[in-house]
Amino acid sequence: MKKTRLRVAYIGGGSRQWARGIMADFALETKLEGEVWLYDIDHPAAQDNQKIGTLYQEHENAVGNWTYHYAKTLDIALKDADIVLISIMPATFKEMVVYGHHPEKYGIYQSVADTTGPAGVMRGLISIPIFVDFAKAIERQCPNAWVINFTNPMTLCLQALYEGFPKIKTFGNCHEVFGSQHDLAKIYNAHKGEELAKREDVDITVAGINHFTWITKMSCFGEDIAPLYDEHVKKVGDPDYEKDPGRFKRIAPFGSEGKIKYDLYRRYNCMAAAGDRHLAEFLPVAYYLQDEKTRDHFKFNLTPVQWRIDNLERAIKKTKAIVAGEQDIHLNKSGEEGLRQIKALYGYEKLITNVNMINKGQIEGLPLGQVVESNALFRYDSVEPIHSGKLPPAVESMVRRHMDNHNLVMESYRNKDFTYAIQALAQDPLCGHLSFADVEKMFYEMKDQIGSYLDYYQS
Amino acid sequence: MKKTRLRVAYIGGGSRQWARGIMADFALETKLEGEVWLYDIDHPAAQDNQKIGTLYQEHENAVGNWTYHYAKTLDIALKDADIVLISIMPATFKEMVVYGHHPEKYGIYQSVADTTGPAGVMRGLISIPIFVDFAKAIERQCPNAWVINFTNPMTLCLQALYEGFPKIKTFGNCHEVFGSQHDLAKIYNAHKGEELAKREDVDITVAGINHFTWITKMSCFGEDIAPLYDEHVKKVGDPDYEKDPGRFKRIAPFGSEGKIKYDLYRRYNCMAAAGDRHLAEFLPVAYYLQDEKTRDHFKFNLTPVQWRIDNLERAIKKTKAIVAGEQDIHLNKSGEEGLRQIKALYGYEKLITNVNMINKGQIEGLPLGQVVESNALFRYDSVEPIHSGKLPPAVESMVRRHMDNHNLVMESYRNKDFTYAIQALAQDPLCGHLSFADVEKMFYEMKDQIGSYLDYYQS
Amino acid sequence: MKKTRLRVAYIGGGSRQWARGIMADFALETKLEGEVWLYDIDHPAAQDNQKIGTLYQEHENAVGNWTYHYAKTLDIALKDADIVLISIMPATFKEMVVYGHHPEKYGIYQSVADTTGPAGVMRGLISIPIFVDFAKAIERQCPNAWVINFTNPMTLCLQALYEGFPKIKTFGNCHEVFGSQHDLAKIYNAHKGEELAKREDVDITVAGINHFTWITKMSCFGEDIAPLYDEHVKKVGDPDYEKDPGRFKRIAPFGSEGKIKYDLYRRYNCMAAAGDRHLAEFLPVAYYLQDEKTRDHFKFNLTPVQWRIDNLERAIKKTKAIVAGEQDIHLNKSGEEGLRQIKALYGYEKLITNVNMINKGQIEGLPLGQVVESNALFRYDSVEPIHSGKLPPAVESMVRRHMDNHNLVMESYRNKDFTYAIQALAQDPLCGHLSFADVEKMFYEMKDQIGSYLDYYQS
Amino acid sequence: MKKTRLRVAYIGGGSRQWARGIMADFALETKLEGEVWLYDIDHPAAQDNQKIGTLYQEHENAVGNWTYHYAKTLDIALKDADIVLISIMPATFKEMVVYGHHPEKYGIYQSVADTTGPAGVMRGLISIPIFVDFAKAIERQCPNAWVINFTNPMTLCLQALYEGFPKIKTFGNCHEVFGSQHDLAKIYNAHKGEELAKREDVDITVAGINHFTWITKMSCFGEDIAPLYDEHVKKVGDPDYEKDPGRFKRIAPFGSEGKIKYDLYRRYNCMAAAGDRHLAEFLPVAYYLQDEKTRDHFKFNLTPVQWRIDNLERAIKKTKAIVAGEQDIHLNKSGEEGLRQIKALYGYEKLITNVNMINKGQIEGLPLGQVVESNALFRYDSVEPIHSGKLPPAVESMVRRHMDNHNLVMESYRNKDFTYAIQALAQDPLCGHLSFADVEKMFYEMKDQIGSYLDYYQS
Repeated sequence: MKKTRLRVAYIGGGSRQWARGIMADFALETKLEGEVWLYDIDHPAAQDNQKIGTLYQEHENAVGNWTYHYAKTLDIALKDADIVLISIMPATFKEMVVYGHHPEKYGIYQSVADTTGPAGVMRGLISIPIFVDFAKAIERQCPNAWVINFTNPMTLCLQALYEGFPKIKTFGNCHEVFGSQHDLAKIYNAHKGEELAKREDVDITVAGINHFTWITKMSCFGEDIAPLYDEHVKKVGDPDYEKDPGRFKRIAPFGSEGKIKYDLYRRYNCMAAAGDRHLAEFLPVAYYLQDEKTRDHFKFNLTPVQWRIDNLERAIKKTKAIVAGEQDIHLNKSGEEGLRQIKALYGYEKLITNVNMINKGQIEGLPLGQVVESNALFRYDSVEPIHSGKLPPAVESMVRRHMDNHNLVMESYRNKDFTYAIQALAQDPLCGHLSFADVEKMFYEMKDQIGSYLDYYQS
Repeated sequence: MKKTRLRVAYIGGGSRQWARGIMADFALETKLEGEVWLYDIDHPAAQDNQKIGTLYQEHENAVGNWTYHYAKTLDIALKDADIVLISIMPATFKEMVVYGHHPEKYGIYQSVADTTGPAGVMRGLISIPIFVDFAKAIERQCPNAWVINFTNPMTLCLQALYEGFPKIKTFGNCHEVFGSQHDLAKIYNAHKGEELAKREDVDITVAGINHFTWITKMSCFGEDIAPLYDEHVKKVGDPDYEKDPGRFKRIAPFGSEGKIKYDLYRRYNCMAAAGDRHLAEFLPVAYYLQDEKTRDHFKFNLTPVQWRIDNLERAIKKTKAIVAGEQDIHLNKSGEEGLRQIKALYGYEKLITNVNMINKGQIEGLPLGQVVESNALFRYDSVEPIHSGKLPPAVESMVRRHMDNHNLVMESYRNKDFTYAIQALAQDPLCGHLSFADVEKMFYEMKDQIGSYLDYYQS
Repeated sequence: MKKTRLRVAYIGGGSRQWARGIMADFALETKLEGEVWLYDIDHPAAQDNQKIGTLYQEHENAVGNWTYHYAKTLDIALKDADIVLISIMPATFKEMVVYGHHPEKYGIYQSVADTTGPAGVMRGLISIPIFVDFAKAIERQCPNAWVINFTNPMTLCLQALYEGFPKIKTFGNCHEVFGSQHDLAKIYNAHKGEELAKREDVDITVAGINHFTWITKMSCFGEDIAPLYDEHVKKVGDPDYEKDPGRFKRIAPFGSEGKIKYDLYRRYNCMAAAGDRHLAEFLPVAYYLQDEKTRDHFKFNLTPVQWRIDNLERAIKKTKAIVAGEQDIHLNKSGEEGLRQIKALYGYEKLITNVNMINKGQIEGLPLGQVVESNALFRYDSVEPIHSGKLPPAVESMVRRHMDNHNLVMESYRNKDFTYAIQALAQDPLCGHLSFADVEKMFYEMKDQIGSYLDYYQS
Repeated sequence: MKKTRLRVAYIGGGSRQWARGIMADFALETKLEGEVWLYDIDHPAAQDNQKIGTLYQEHENAVGNWTYHYAKTLDIALKDADIVLISIMPATFKEMVVYGHHPEKYGIYQSVADTTGPAGVMRGLISIPIFVDFAKAIERQCPNAWVINFTNPMTLCLQALYEGFPKIKTFGNCHEVFGSQHDLAKIYNAHKGEELAKREDVDITVAGINHFTWITKMSCFGEDIAPLYDEHVKKVGDPDYEKDPGRFKRIAPFGSEGKIKYDLYRRYNCMAAAGDRHLAEFLPVAYYLQDEKTRDHFKFNLTPVQWRIDNLERAIKKTKAIVAGEQDIHLNKSGEEGLRQIKALYGYEKLITNVNMINKGQIEGLPLGQVVESNALFRYDSVEPIHSGKLPPAVESMVRRHMDNHNLVMESYRNKDFTYAIQALAQDPLCGHLSFADVEKMFYEMKDQIGSYLDYYQS
């Protein structure tokens, strides 16, 4: 069978994490080939990646056949694309400091600060017009392309794509759920006393929204493993069980030990599918985030923006070294599913995995027409959501409340009126201890510091 | 036209407020006549009312033709009834002290303590089995009767009636909305400089749930009065406007000055239709209830249970005096709409008024099959909800969150499992500053004090 | 109270029936006043009506204060209108002959030929672009006006208005239901032996689509009259009952004796609310229309288009005579509700009546967003549908099938593709005896004769 | 991995087609093993199959490990079953003659006579109480079992299972769709000039109801094959193309040449997925069935009940010979998916295939809670429908009309009132040329001949 030839556009083509991962996956891929057009508002970063992608192709293990191009404009990148990948950073670290840390003044600590809460609202307001513009350019240049988004806030970025071009063929990827599958495989293997299962062997039914997804069914090799999980959660907290109680501190700023997930399981009798740092942000501050003592109790860390800034510097240095040929290249598969999804869309396999896309009824009880996360079947030119039933009623209500807020933030954009975004913020569980007056004050303090990225809303 | 002869059953027939009001209305009514069967678990109270009802009939102004009967059992009272009225007090003041005041330990002050928040959840759990039993007795004795409920928590009591007998013909009355109509009539008259409008002249479209109802349209004598209301709200807070800033204290424990309603209007651009003491309880404590300073700022009072206890004693004394013939009887119309509704159900008039009943689609965007409050058309043997459109999105979301909690409390009853009620409490805005662990602790502390009324859930 | 001054636009202002009726009602009206702008593609007809309206005002019984104006263009007529009335004849009698009589070649006889069946589809295709244009002009000139349509096919004309201007405030009037109320009043009076009830005293719940509306509840003066109707239907057919079996022939071409309505009641246990000539067309030809014997059995007449042509000539003659002052003017109320509705929209009264408007949930089980007929409450600037419950399942299915066809005809317009209209025709009960090939052939034969009115679809 | 041990109940265990097929599949299966309990009201037939199943196990090619048991009662068969298979013949050939041929008196010819039309309604009425009883027995004996139905009318049999036990885990299999996949593979291979694709290589999205299913998307090896199908349909009818125009006669009574499917594709621009003999029955008689000339034109045959009777005799003879050991046994895979589905339910593979189950939203626009056919994902203990989008509007309307009729037949059962079934019949496209009076007459003529199987409805 001859290879399928693709034209891929990468928006945010200077990305150091996602772009490098997929370029490595491409280099190791035998069935697809083609050209990749990298576009980034940070043009030198895209140019660097063009060089790195080319170096990947020249690596001795490379089997793929791909050429890399730097695109001066978005429209050049998108022209006749078959696949569009989007992983950008909306605005800059300066704004991230604002929405990530300013709310601390009001007792709101955010462990990730990109999805929900004050950070989610502000980053959403910043991102929506950008993604609406992407969608319009896609409609112009490649209306039939499949568009895969990796950017957060995932839900609002996708919603903005649908807003800009309602017929867009898009979905959003998130690997958080993979972590839960890993955990379940470990629990299964521990129970069996053998390394039998890998992540992919764990079948789950997922339902919810990005980073607040829930697992309503789980099995492994023809066995219901819900009882194993239940038993596992009961053991957690035993001194015997916690062999290394200080570990989470050493792996800061990302580490967590799953204690929030276990706590939620005890409260709602349902397994949450994202990492603890994400889950914590969807709930009242008094639950997990309010002070260091509570966070230590639940054994997870905040990720300060300063760490991200420092990390970027390290990444830039490393990039320079690679481009200068001063550093060896190791070609490794990324572990992400982007490439497998693309291959499924071209008929090479069938794939069942979790994705974010508009709710057409796949999750009963959640609003239609808004982005949700569920399983879907990937086949030739088709991503069909798989029906995942209803969530337990309290979980459904929590998820819907956040979806209502997504809708309010979109209304802010649609009406160019911050009122709706402030109402969303007032309803966010992280703000449940504040007066409406304080919520409003906090909003405008952040807005004033964010400046031009939100000028859009005053036009 | 000859009079319609009715058999009326009154559950909670010892009631000192609602029962007396309707007995007075009956005495002044010319088109209906019949017999009223009073049933109450406080049998002497029902017997007292039987005497008082009879005295009303003997009053010189009485024109109606009604006989009053004391019913030893619920089934006797309901036998072949045409109309069933329900106004009971679920459990006793002892339990009201628990759900009304215990949450103060957690910073939760409740101004009325009968509808939502910790009080609503606990009073709901107490009431549901009682109302399910009422419904089953109605199915047995008078399945075609119209059943009018006055008891709080209105929404859960009605939901329990539907649960016990799904085909029941029922609705719930609430006069809170009348207060908003009065206010609007005053604003209209002030604007015109003449006493032109009465409450009934103000046409409104209402949508929401009991005590958290919203007015989405308002007019008076063919004029849109939304601009008048808007102007009015803007003036409030002016020193000139507040001529008697201490008034609300003097009219404690019930008084309020509408400042919460105005604050909500400013935040949500929509008029809330219940009194401030009710509205405050549907929102985070930090908004209005958290401390005396805040409450004074919004000029409203808490109603302590002790006041209710003292008030009851006064009422009992007064009852004894009436029964003993030591006190003059004044026959006045109650100002409630119960009688007009009954007359409309027998074809004497058409009536458009707000009622609580199951959502069949009258409020777009709110869950079907759960109790909501909207306008309805009363005609012969028929209460047809009038379509009220959609609420503004943030208001809809707030209302739905409370409806989700109603559903969770019902699930607690259905499954005899407190987990759902605790999840409801955790989602209640009044608890938004607490950890889940504290919510759970508070729940069980209340539950343990309430005792036998909740034993039902352990069977 | 001072009069409300209105600017009324009348599209189809040359209309001899509807325009004259409302001009008479205006002349007799004391609370409203203003100016009426008459627009018609038949300009002289509009000019005639301008004169006649003015003559009405000069009549000795006239109490209203209205001036009449002829508008050269649609936009002039609509400019700043408060109320827009639409009663036009889509295309001409030439086309009506085609869609009214050509289907007879295929065994399809149509008694009215303006709503459903081949006539409904073709007349719908002709009307939709016209009404979409009206809606766009309304959006341009008077977006806040209330728009009242009297034109058939009612459902498709309204749907086209919504299509052209989704926020339009519109509804459609139909007096067919009044006839059913008259019949019920007669039955009630006969039962009581006294002339007690008038049409307006009969309360009904209506649900369905225009000319295929159903009455699910009926009462009069506080009495359920469903049993009276049931008894009445049972008697029909008795030789004694049918005192004048030949009457329907003498009152041709309009007469009918209600036998189709009674037959449907026996089959579906539900009263249909339109006249027999309309009802017959919604059902398979073998039911009522197929041959003269069957039509005679059900005692109703076809209305040949030639009769309409002759009738128009008579009307034109009469118009000339009136304009020339050769004929006396009799000012009589029209019996229609248009004026009362307008007064209700200006707050002079509350009115509950049946109207056609978009389904927002008022009829459970029928598609949302498509035009249905139900009761509505008219109040100041507001027409709120009243919830009418569900139709019996077989009736619901029949109604929905026609609504599916409305949707298909709209799809034809939207896609400028006759395929959808032909599919609609194939599904129409009147075509249930034909092969798809014959349906297609019949469609194109009609289309070719209709000519330029459908050219629109080829652009 | 050790084998999974199952207890299988087979209702209709005397079945000569379906039971033999699955017994052969079991004999050739290596991963599952266990015992099969055969129950049939024709007890000797079940006993014969017990012997034949045992003989299969003794065949030299048999690798499976299964024992066969004859169950005297339904409850014995179902006791603790893991899997329940149902393939029965509702009533007898005597009744089949009635519902299959009596309607010919009214011009209604039925090619299969088991799914829709008069046959579907009557066979449905016969089957519903039987399947409700099965469901109740399943609830009693094995509420967790997966229940697979093969019996027609598929939709009503499944609906009856849900009616009897709402939590039943059930689905229904139909191989008609496989035929369409075969055809598409042939078209693909012809285009490529090579035998590349097998049925399973053709990916389709299916939506509709059993025997009236539609394919809205099709691909093969990463290629959209809709254009190939379109081209294929255009060629059909060419004299060159039809090399053997008389073939369909020779393969009577089952044969067909796909001409109805092609005709529907031309009319609705969507491929129907069942065989022509089934499709014909869902449409007006004038389309395909009305006379021999039309049927010959569309090259398909009726299947007379007499043929079935004769065929049964042949089958019984063959059975006797097998049981007597007078005939060699050939163990061949059945080509059905029942066994693969069971294996998927035990986690041995993931399977995507079309099944009949309740609509939870998998087909947008069709009623929820009624049985539809779509793709589903089979995994461990789970059958999750895959979202198949919306059907083209005219197809959706045709499908829904039949679903409305399913609902009416269920209402007949629920209310023990034939009125609903007669209304269904009147709405059935096959009856679109009849008067309601004739429909009613035909119904009662059939009912009177069917006798005791419908006495149930008079209790």
